[in-house]
Amino acid sequence: MAFSYLNNVSLEKARDEYIDKLKAEGLKPKSELINVSAACGRITAVPVYAKLCSPHYHACAMDGIAIMAHLSFGAGETTPVTLGVDDYTIVDTGDPLPDGCDAVIMIEDVIKNDDGSVKLYSPAAPWQHIRQIGEDICAGEMILPALKEITPAAIGSMIAGGCLEIEVISKPVIGIIPTGDEVVTPTASPKPGDILEFNSSIFSAMVEEWGGKAKVYPIVPDKPELLRQTLSDAIDSCDAVLLNAGSSAGRDDYSVKIISELAEVLYHGIAIKPGKPAILGYCGAKPVLGVPGYPVSGIIVIEQLLKPILDLMCGKVNDSDAYVTATLSRAIVSGLKYKEFVRVRMGSVDGKLIASPLNRGAGVVSSFMKADGIIEVAQGCEGILAGESVNVRLLRPKSELVNSIVIIGSHDPLLDELGNLLHLKNNNLFVSSSHVGSMGGIMALKRGEAHLGGCHLLNEADGSYNTAYIKRYLPDGGVRLVECVGRTQGIMVKSGNPLGISCFEDLFKGGLRYVNRQKGSGTRVLLDYLCKTNGFDPNMLYGYEREEFTHTAVAAQIAADSADAGFGIYSAAKMYGLDFIPVCVEQYDLIIPDYAWDNPMVQELISVLQSPEFKQRLNELGGYTVNAPGTVRERF
Amino acid sequence: MAFSYLNNVSLEKARDEYIDKLKAEGLKPKSELINVSAACGRITAVPVYAKLCSPHYHACAMDGIAIMAHLSFGAGETTPVTLGVDDYTIVDTGDPLPDGCDAVIMIEDVIKNDDGSVKLYSPAAPWQHIRQIGEDICAGEMILPALKEITPAAIGSMIAGGCLEIEVISKPVIGIIPTGDEVVTPTASPKPGDILEFNSSIFSAMVEEWGGKAKVYPIVPDKPELLRQTLSDAIDSCDAVLLNAGSSAGRDDYSVKIISELAEVLYHGIAIKPGKPAILGYCGAKPVLGVPGYPVSGIIVIEQLLKPILDLMCGKVNDSDAYVTATLSRAIVSGLKYKEFVRVRMGSVDGKLIASPLNRGAGVVSSFMKADGIIEVAQGCEGILAGESVNVRLLRPKSELVNSIVIIGSHDPLLDELGNLLHLKNNNLFVSSSHVGSMGGIMALKRGEAHLGGCHLLNEADGSYNTAYIKRYLPDGGVRLVECVGRTQGIMVKSGNPLGISCFEDLFKGGLRYVNRQKGSGTRVLLDYLCKTNGFDPNMLYGYEREEFTHTAVAAQIAADSADAGFGIYSAAKMYGLDFIPVCVEQYDLIIPDYAWDNPMVQELISVLQSPEFKQRLNELGGYTVNAPGTVRERF
Repeated sequence: MAFSYLNNVSLEKARDEYIDKLKAEGLKPKSELINVSAACGRITAVPVYAKLCSPHYHACAMDGIAIMAHLSFGAGETTPVTLGVDDYTIVDTGDPLPDGCDAVIMIEDVIKNDDGSVKLYSPAAPWQHIRQIGEDICAGEMILPALKEITPAAIGSMIAGGCLEIEVISKPVIGIIPTGDEVVTPTASPKPGDILEFNSSIFSAMVEEWGGKAKVYPIVPDKPELLRQTLSDAIDSCDAVLLNAGSSAGRDDYSVKIISELAEVLYHGIAIKPGKPAILGYCGAKPVLGVPGYPVSGIIVIEQLLKPILDLMCGKVNDSDAYVTATLSRAIVSGLKYKEFVRVRMGSVDGKLIASPLNRGAGVVSSFMKADGIIEVAQGCEGILAGESVNVRLLRPKSELVNSIVIIGSHDPLLDELGNLLHLKNNNLFVSSSHVGSMGGIMALKRGEAHLGGCHLLNEADGSYNTAYIKRYLPDGGVRLVECVGRTQGIMVKSGNPLGISCFEDLFKGGLRYVNRQKGSGTRVLLDYLCKTNGFDPNMLYGYEREEFTHTAVAAQIAADSADAGFGIYSAAKMYGLDFIPVCVEQYDLIIPDYAWDNPMVQELISVLQSPEFKQRLNELGGYTVNAPGTVRERF
Repeated sequence: MAFSYLNNVSLEKARDEYIDKLKAEGLKPKSELINVSAACGRITAVPVYAKLCSPHYHACAMDGIAIMAHLSFGAGETTPVTLGVDDYTIVDTGDPLPDGCDAVIMIEDVIKNDDGSVKLYSPAAPWQHIRQIGEDICAGEMILPALKEITPAAIGSMIAGGCLEIEVISKPVIGIIPTGDEVVTPTASPKPGDILEFNSSIFSAMVEEWGGKAKVYPIVPDKPELLRQTLSDAIDSCDAVLLNAGSSAGRDDYSVKIISELAEVLYHGIAIKPGKPAILGYCGAKPVLGVPGYPVSGIIVIEQLLKPILDLMCGKVNDSDAYVTATLSRAIVSGLKYKEFVRVRMGSVDGKLIASPLNRGAGVVSSFMKADGIIEVAQGCEGILAGESVNVRLLRPKSELVNSIVIIGSHDPLLDELGNLLHLKNNNLFVSSSHVGSMGGIMALKRGEAHLGGCHLLNEADGSYNTAYIKRYLPDGGVRLVECVGRTQGIMVKSGNPLGISCFEDLFKGGLRYVNRQKGSGTRVLLDYLCKTNGFDPNMLYGYEREEFTHTAVAAQIAADSADAGFGIYSAAKMYGLDFIPVCVEQYDLIIPDYAWDNPMVQELISVLQSPEFKQRLNELGGYTVNAPGTVRERF
C-alpha cells in the first residue's frame, strides 16, 4: 500500500510546457497524397496550384450559332444581316468554339431562312456568349493555400483545375489502450465487479470528431509485461497513445511506472477536478498520456490535454469555444487546490440564461451527456453562490438552449416521455429537466429560473395536494396549477414479497432495510406524514437517512437487494419487476408561472400533455390515473 | 430546335409544394439497428431506455477497507475503535462492495496494527465512499429521446446502460447520375469540348456533409434508353435521385422527358438565378430532381431543394443559418424575374463588415469556393446599390471573417503567396483579396472598405509610380505607400515567338490578335501610355476591347492561341511557358490607410512581406526585383 507522489501543477502551466516540449521534439503535421474526391473536410498540407485552365477551351455558353463577330456588324432592326451556311456553325452550350469564330448568338435571336442562311437583327460583340479559357480558373493560379479546410466547392475547383490528387494533412492515429483486470468488453449481462469498458468508445468518438483516427487495443490486464509490450507497440505504430485507467496512485497502479520506462514523464498529477491523476508523458514527439479510469475524468483530461495537441497535428486553427454568461441556479462548492470543471444544464427563462449544476461524480458519464455547458471554477476559488453570474463554455448551440423548456422539480419518468413527444412533434424544441424534488421546484420558480415544475406535495392538514404549498411559498401568486396525473404511491418490495409486507405498519417490523428519498421530495413528505398519522418515529426505520433522488433509483436498490423496501410510484416498481403495495393515489401536477405561460414552447408542451399519444404512453407505463392533463386547475 | 415550356414559379412556393407533396406520398425517416460504438453523430430513431443500471453493482469508490458502518460508531480522536480481521475487507476502487458491508473507509484513515486489526479515529457514515447501484443510470430510464444526435458521452452512457445496439435514422441514399455526351471522367489532359465531370464530386461531398450517403453512377451519354434504364435503377435502389445536366431546354435535353416517364413532374423551371431550369419530380415519396449542368446552378438547386428534404429524411432539425448585416462594396444588378443568389467575399474593415460580389457566372465554380457568404436578391428587386446594407447568409464562421485581411486592388500572384505564408505563420489569419485593378483599389480604400490595396499606376508626366495617383484621388491623405516589388512588365507571346515580335511597335504590324486588361488596371494604363508616347492609336489594336482581369488569364488566352500577344508580368508568362519581351520595370506597391495600419493583422502581414521566405518565393516565381518589401516609402 505505497503511494507515489502526485504533482499538483496548474493545468495551464502543464499544458503549455507539454506542448512546448512536444514541439521541441519535432511535433508537427504529417501529410499524405489522396484522391481529391475523397478530400472533403480534410486540410491542405501545401498550396494547391491549378494545372489546367477551366474551361480548358473556349466554350460556347449558349445554344445557338457561332460566327465571326465582324460579319454581323451593321445589323439592325431595319437592316438585317444575312449569313450564308458557311458563315455560321450551329453550337450547343459547352461545345468548343469552332475555329475562325469569336462570338455566339443565342438561337432565339436567329431567324432561319429556307435556303439554310440565317438573318440577324442585331450585331454580335466579339467574345459574347463564350466562356473563354480560364474564365473560372487559370492554370498556375493558387486554388487553395496551405492549411485550408476543403469544401465541396473546392473539390470541384481542384478537379476543374486538373488537380486529381492532392497533399493533405494526415489524420493522426491515436492509440487507445484500455487496461485493468476488472475491465470487461461491454455485455448485456455483466457480473458484479465487472467494469464495462466503454471509455475507449467515448474516447474514439471524440478523437474522430476532432479529425484523428482512433486505434483501440484489446483490454490489457494489470500485468506489467503485457502493459509494457502493448504500450511499446502502440508508441511504434501510432502518433499518440492514451493509456486508460490505472493512473491514480492505487494498489494496481502500474501506468506511471510503465510509461516512465518507455517515455519521459513530464507531470503526474494536474490541479484539475475531475482528472487529477493524469500522466503527461512523451516519447520523442509522440504524446503518451495516462488517462484516469473514471469516464468524466478521462473526458476532461483528453479534452484539455489531447485536443490542443491533436489540433496541432491536424494543422487546425484552434476552434474558439463559445462562451455565454448565465445565472447559476444552485451554489457550487469547490476545492481550493484544483481547477474544477462543473457540468451544467442550461435554459433560457424569461430572457435570462440559467445554468444548473449536474451530478459531479467522476463516474457519472451521463452527466456529460446531459450537460449543455461547462463552468470552469478557477483553482483557488472556494465556489460560486446561487444567483451569481457565471461564464459557461457551451457544449450545444445556443439556439438549442433558447429552445429548451426548463423543468425543475419533482421527478417522474413521464417528464422524459413528455420531452420525447414534444421533440417528435416539433424538432426545434427540447426539454431540459432537473430533478430536485417538489420543494426545490417551487423555490426555482420563485427565483424565476424555470418554465415549470412538477409537484406532488401533500397538505397534512386536509390531505389535499399542492395548493396549500403554493399559497405558503408563492404568496404573491402569479402561477397556474396545471393538472397532470394521479399516480399510485406505494411500497416497493422484492418480487414475491419475501418479508410479507402488506401495509405501511409492516415497514417497522424490524430488521427491514429501508431506502428513502431526499429531503424536500414529495415522496419523503408522504412518508413523514404517514409516520406521523400512524404514530411511528421515522428514525426507527433502518435506512431512513439513505437518500436516493429518483423513484427508479429507489427501485434499483431494492432490485439489487441492497434494501428491502422503499416508497415510490407503480411505474418504477413495474420497470424493475418489483412487487408493489399501493398506499394512496397522489396528485402530480405542474406549476407554471405567468412569466412562462404565454411562451409558445410552454403552450406546445401543454398541447402534448393533452394529446392522445401522451395518454397512451402513460397507460403503457402503468400506475397513472389520467383525467384531463393540461387543464388549469387553479390560478394564483 | 423546339423549346419546351419552363415554369417561373417562386422558389418558396415550389419548395413548399414539393415538400408537402413528398410528405403526402409518405416521405419520412427510415431507421436501422447499428452497433452503438459506431453511432457518433447519428440520430436516434426511437427513445433509448437503459437495460442495466450503472454501476450495475455497489462499487467501492475508494481504495481502503469495507466495513459495516455501525461497527465504527463512537470512534473519535481520543476514542479509536479497533476492528478485528473479520470485521473488514481490503478493497480497491471499483471492487464490488463485500457482502455484509455498507461503508468504505479510505486507506489514509486506517491505522493497521501488527495483529492485522485496524484502528479508526472517526466513524463512517452508512453508504459513504460507495457508488450505489444506478448512481449514474437506472435501468428503465430514458437515456436519449428520439431524434437526438448522439455524442461521444451518449455512447458511453448507452453502453453503461446495457444498450449495445440501437435504432438510428438511416442515412438516405442519394443517387447522382451525371449525363451528357461531352461529359468525361476527370483527367489531367482533356480534349477540347470535353467537359470534366466534377459535379458529382461536389454533390456527393455536399450530400455526405448533410448526413446522406451518395451513390454516384457512371456517366450516361445522351441516349434516351440508357438514361431511362439508369434512372429507373436509381429510383429503385436510392431514396432520392439527382439527374445532372440536360435540364435546360436545349437540343439534347432528354431529362424532363425521361423524368416525366418514370415520375411525376411538379415543376420544370424555378424563378432563381442561377438554377432556373431545375426539374422537381417525384416517384412516390422519392424525390427525382433534374439538376442543371453548370456547377454553381447545381449547387444552388441542391442546397435550396434537396437539403430541406434530406433534413426531413434524416430527422434533423433545420439548422438555422447564420446571417449578418454587411455593407455592399459594389453594386449588384439583378433581374426582376428571378430570386438571385450572389456569392460574396467578406471582411471586417475598421469595425464594418464589407461584402464584395464575386464573379456571377453559373459555370464559375471557384466563386463558390472563394465565397464567404451569399446575398439573396429577392425576385422583383432590380438590384442593390454600393454602400447599402445587405443581409448575408454566412458560409464561414464569422470569427474567420473578422480575422481576414481585405485586399482590394491590382492583381499579382504574389498576393496569394503572401496569404499562404501569413496563414502558415499564424493559422488564425486569412487573406481575402479581390482583383479590381489599381484604381478600383484606391476607390475601395477611399470608401474605407479594404485594409490595403495593390497598386502600380504610372504617372505619365514623369514616369513615376503611384504617388501622383494617391495625391489626386486621396487628397486628404491618411495613407502610407509601402514598398512591395519591382516587376518586369512586357509583351507575352507564344513560345518561339512565331510572329517575330521584338518591341512595342511590332504589336501594330497588322493581323495580330491582342488581348487586353480591364479598364482601371495599371497594365492597361501602361499600354495606353506607351501608345501615346509612341504615337499609336490603341484602337488600331485588334482585340483592344477584349478584357481579362488577371495576368494569368491573359497568358492563358495566348497559350491557347486565341490571342497572339498581351501585356503582362514575367511570372505569368513563365507559368504558361510563353516567350516574354521585357518592356519596363514598374513599381508594384501596397497602399495602407491609417485606419488599418495599427491593426495587428496588417502588421503581421508586413512582417511576412519582410521575411526571407517571401523573398525566396518571389525568386522562384521570377521577374521580380526585390529591394526592401514592407518598408514605408512615403506617408500622405
